[in-house]
Order: sequence, then C-alpha cells, then structure tokens
Amino acid sequence: MATRQIPMLSLEAAKVAAEGAQEKAKQMGMDFNIALVDGTLQLLHFVRMPNAKLTSIQISIDKAFTAAGHRSPTSAYQNKVFLPGGPAFGIHNSNGGRFMIIGGGIPIEVDGVTVGAIGVSTGTPAQDIECATAGVEAVNAFVKRKSGSKL
Amino acid sequence: MATRQIPMLSLEAAKVAAEGAQEKAKQMGMDFNIALVDGTLQLLHFVRMPNAKLTSIQISIDKAFTAAGHRSPTSAYQNKVFLPGGPAFGIHNSNGGRFMIIGGGIPIEVDGVTVGAIGVSTGTPAQDIECATAGVEAVNAFVKRKSGSKL
Amino acid sequence: MATRQIPMLSLEAAKVAAEGAQEKAKQMGMDFNIALVDGTLQLLHFVRMPNAKLTSIQISIDKAFTAAGHRSPTSAYQNKVFLPGGPAFGIHNSNGGRFMIIGGGIPIEVDGVTVGAIGVSTGTPAQDIECATAGVEAVNAFVKRKSGSKL
Amino acid sequence: MATRQIPMLSLEAAKVAAEGAQEKAKQMGMDFNIALVDGTLQLLHFVRMPNAKLTSIQISIDKAFTAAGHRSPTSAYQNKVFLPGGPAFGIHNSNGGRFMIIGGGIPIEVDGVTVGAIGVSTGTPAQDIECATAGVEAVNAFVKRKSGSKL
Repeated sequence: MATRQIPMLSLEAAKVAAEGAQEKAKQMGMDFNIALVDGTLQLLHFVRMPNAKLTSIQISIDKAFTAAGHRSPTSAYQNKVFLPGGPAFGIHNSNGGRFMIIGGGIPIEVDGVTVGAIGVSTGTPAQDIECATAGVEAVNAFVKRKSGSKL
Repeated sequence: MATRQIPMLSLEAAKVAAEGAQEKAKQMGMDFNIALVDGTLQLLHFVRMPNAKLTSIQISIDKAFTAAGHRSPTSAYQNKVFLPGGPAFGIHNSNGGRFMIIGGGIPIEVDGVTVGAIGVSTGTPAQDIECATAGVEAVNAFVKRKSGSKL
Repeated sequence: MATRQIPMLSLEAAKVAAEGAQEKAKQMGMDFNIALVDGTLQLLHFVRMPNAKLTSIQISIDKAFTAAGHRSPTSAYQNKVFLPGGPAFGIHNSNGGRFMIIGGGIPIEVDGVTVGAIGVSTGTPAQDIECATAGVEAVNAFVKRKSGSKL
Repeated sequence: MATRQIPMLSLEAAKVAAEGAQEKAKQMGMDFNIALVDGTLQLLHFVRMPNAKLTSIQISIDKAFTAAGHRSPTSAYQNKVFLPGGPAFGIHNSNGGRFMIIGGGIPIEVDGVTVGAIGVSTGTPAQDIECATAGVEAVNAFVKRKSGSKL
C-alpha cells in the first residue's frame, strides 16, 4: 500500500481536553499553560491562563511534543536508565533540547493508540500532572459519550 | 515611578477573537491556523483547524508576534520602503527571521492602545487577512458589549 | 474583560537597579554584566562593566529572563527536585537552553508582584547573587522614597 | 609580536552615547531602543525607552553589531551592489540574519578607528538615524572634552 491511515487527535477533542484542564485548574486555584499536539507532534491548540508563567509556555508545548512523540508520560523519565550513568541518560538534550523529562506531558490514547498529547506547565510537576490528567480524562469521557451516541 | 501599568489582551478576549476567526473560516469554507499574543508578544491562545497547513503554524504565531510588537498590520510591509532599494528593506530578516511581512497579522487595540494581536495563516494573504479581520472585529464587538454592560 | 492591567518595571527603576549593582561591584573590586528585564521578559537595560566576561553577557540576560518568568531567584534550582532523579530535572534545557538555574537572577517585586528581574554574571554564583541583591535593594529603596514622596 | 592593542569603546563613553540619544529622543517626542557594542561586537550597554517596540530590541542590537563589524553605517546598504542582481546581494542573510541593512546603526570612531557602534530602532530609518547620530555626536563631544582636559 502507498498509504496508511493514522488516527489523529481532532481539534474538537483538543478543545475538550483544554476545557477539562482549565476546569481542574480553577478547582486548584492555579493558572497553567495548556498545550495540545496531535500525532504530527505539531501544535494543535493552546491556552495560557492569566497568571501562567511566561517561561512555561514553551515547556508546556515541549511536554506535549515529547509525550506524543515517545508515547509515554514525561513523568516516566525519573527511571534510573535516564539518570547519569544510565544507558539512556542524555535523552533530555535531544531534539534541540525540546525533549522534556518533567511530568506534565501525557499521551492521549484512543482505542489503545496514541493520537496526540497534552502538556501542562507552571506548577510543580505534581500539579502539572494533576491538571494534565484532567485534560486526558475529559477526552476519555468525550470518546465514551461519542461511542455511546453511535449505539 | 518604579512601575508602569500596561494593558494586556485577556484570555477571554483572545478566545472571542479565535471564535470569530473560526466562524469566518467556516463561511469561507477554509481551515486556518489562528494565533493570539498579548502585549508581551508571547503566545496566549492558538487553534489549528483540521486542514490548516502545518508549515503555517509558526507563520501564524510570528504574524501575531510582529503585529503586536510593531503595532501595525503585517500587510503594511508591501510599501516600497520595505522593498529592495527601500530604506527599510531587510526587516523581514530581523528577530531571527520571525518578523513576518506577509498580511494576516493584525494588532488588537483597546482604547487606542495595542494590547495584543491576531495572526492567521494557511490561505493567500488576502484570505488570511479576511479571517484575521473577523477575529479583530469579534474582539471590538466584545469590548463594546462589555462597555455597555458597565452603564 | 478584554484587557487586564500588568505592572511593569520602569526604565527609571531599572537604571536605579543597575546603578546599585555597579556600586556594589566597585566595593567588591569586580566587574559584572548586569541585565534588567521587565514583565515581558524582554531586555530593558544592560551594562557590561569593563572587565566582565563576554561569555557571561547572555548568561546575565537569561538569568533575568528566568527569574522574571518563573518569579523565583535562579538560585532556587539547587533544590533536589531539580537534580538528576528529581521530578523537575531537565528544566535547565527548556526555553531553548535559556532557562538558567545558576544563582544571580532575582525577581524585582513591587507590592508583592513580580514586575521584572535583574540578572548578574561573571563571578561565582555567590558573587553574582551579592551584586544582583544590591540591585534589587536599590529598587526597593527607590520604591520607598517614591511612596514617601506621595505623602 | 604576540599581541596587538585594540582600542575599544569604554562603558563610560557608551553611557554618554546612550544619554545623548535619549535626550534627542525626548526632543523628537519618541521612544527608541538604544544599543551600544564595542569592538568585540558584543553588547556593552542597552536602554529600552518606555514606548519602544519590543520587536525592535534585537534590531537595535543587530544594527550596532553590523555597524561595528563592517565599520560602516547600516544606511550604506541601499547602494545597488547590495540589491538583487548586484554582486553583494544577500549580505543581509549573513551572520544568522543578524546583518542589518536598515539605517540606524552607526560606527563610533576615535582617532579614525572604529571602536564600537550605536544601534537605534523603533522609528523610521530616518528617525532611527537621527537619534543614533545624536549618540555618536555625544561621544565625539566627550572625546573632545577629555582631550582638552589633558592639556
């Protein structure tokens, strides 16, 4: 075959993810940068909440880039294989330094396939993960609703 | 004084601009990348419509960056002063090549002050300008509604 | 609202900070690069003292950029969460490598809000911090004088 | 000989230039970015006046860089040898795009030797040149006063 079909996160679902993350942020009383990429790893949707850090804009985008590209949460890189002396140490320098190994980037999966990712930044890694997780859960709920409506 | 107050485009208004631009895009039957920056020139909001060009993502962001920074539509640079032999030729090379002289970046002004900008890309410059203008007009209408609601 | 007001460090205050830092440098018998940014994270004022290191120019600017953007002294990143194995390790790679985790960048706060930052480089981190602190203190004294003059 | 002596613009003289340029700016009723480099082409002194364009910061620095490096005002590049079809066309792309061919960068000469340059940006090229010229003249007057005081 000359082509293959690749499922990509839709803009509609990216907006659902960003909304879910913003709602969680309001519950947390914090502001975040929230970035969504699809399977091309290119920016699809972005929201900077009022008090989010300007130095976290690119971090949020790069977390989404890394999570979608490596199909793994960016929190996974505390494993010792990525630490100095480990066989994968140095990965954070790759891709022009865009490979983020700080939690807050999470793949978005549909039917077991990574179709994009969300990246969140401004808080601690734990706070960023909490906010990003809400975004992923919002997409998962959206997928379920859509599946249900087909029945 | 140790500080000065600078008005910045709000996220709320940036979303209004992006919505206005997307509605216009649907009327035009086209998809665009739509970027909003505030007065820091940093990304505030971004939407990539499904069929928008991947190589136009950065162009849309850089159009907004240029329009907000130079407080002028990016369509202004067809003036002969910016053409070869003109005294301002070469400006498109500045800022690491981010200075966009292609139409589609338009400042957003409130009370006569540039508070941010919209940048649109994927179509011809004329199409990008048409879509970006709809975004600016949506903010202007929003500002009027808000002013009215204060009375 | 379509806009929000953001307080920004004034040029006048930035000059006061640079003067304070230069006076301290003379007391220390050393020369430094001294950079000031406002809340846009963009360069506002810069002084290279005669014997300051050329490779420290960009470091001083990036320390100010980081301190203003993350609203925290750049000396804060010795905390173990930013060390290998910690959950925020890798942050020094972000923002195209401009995120400085070496002391010498300090936010400037007015009325509890970060309005900019000073970045100092050429000496040891401890020396850079000493010089930068003098800059911050000079602004704080300036703010107090200005507040007093309003009475 | 293993070494040679190179005269470099001093910080003291750079501050004189920046002051002269700022005074002229106030007479003109405009705000500018004002950058000084010495013979290393590295930033020596910088002032961003309150209403100067953020997208002109790097332009001012690059104008000074170009004027000091090529020992020529940046307004010299309207000559047809630098235009499309001319033998030197394309020079504006060199140095990573930092070679500015827009007026407003002027070498500072002492005893017939280029020791640095001033770069000014925000206005039209003519306005930038007017402001930059005032900076150069301030240094020239400073040099004369210093020469006189030696007598």
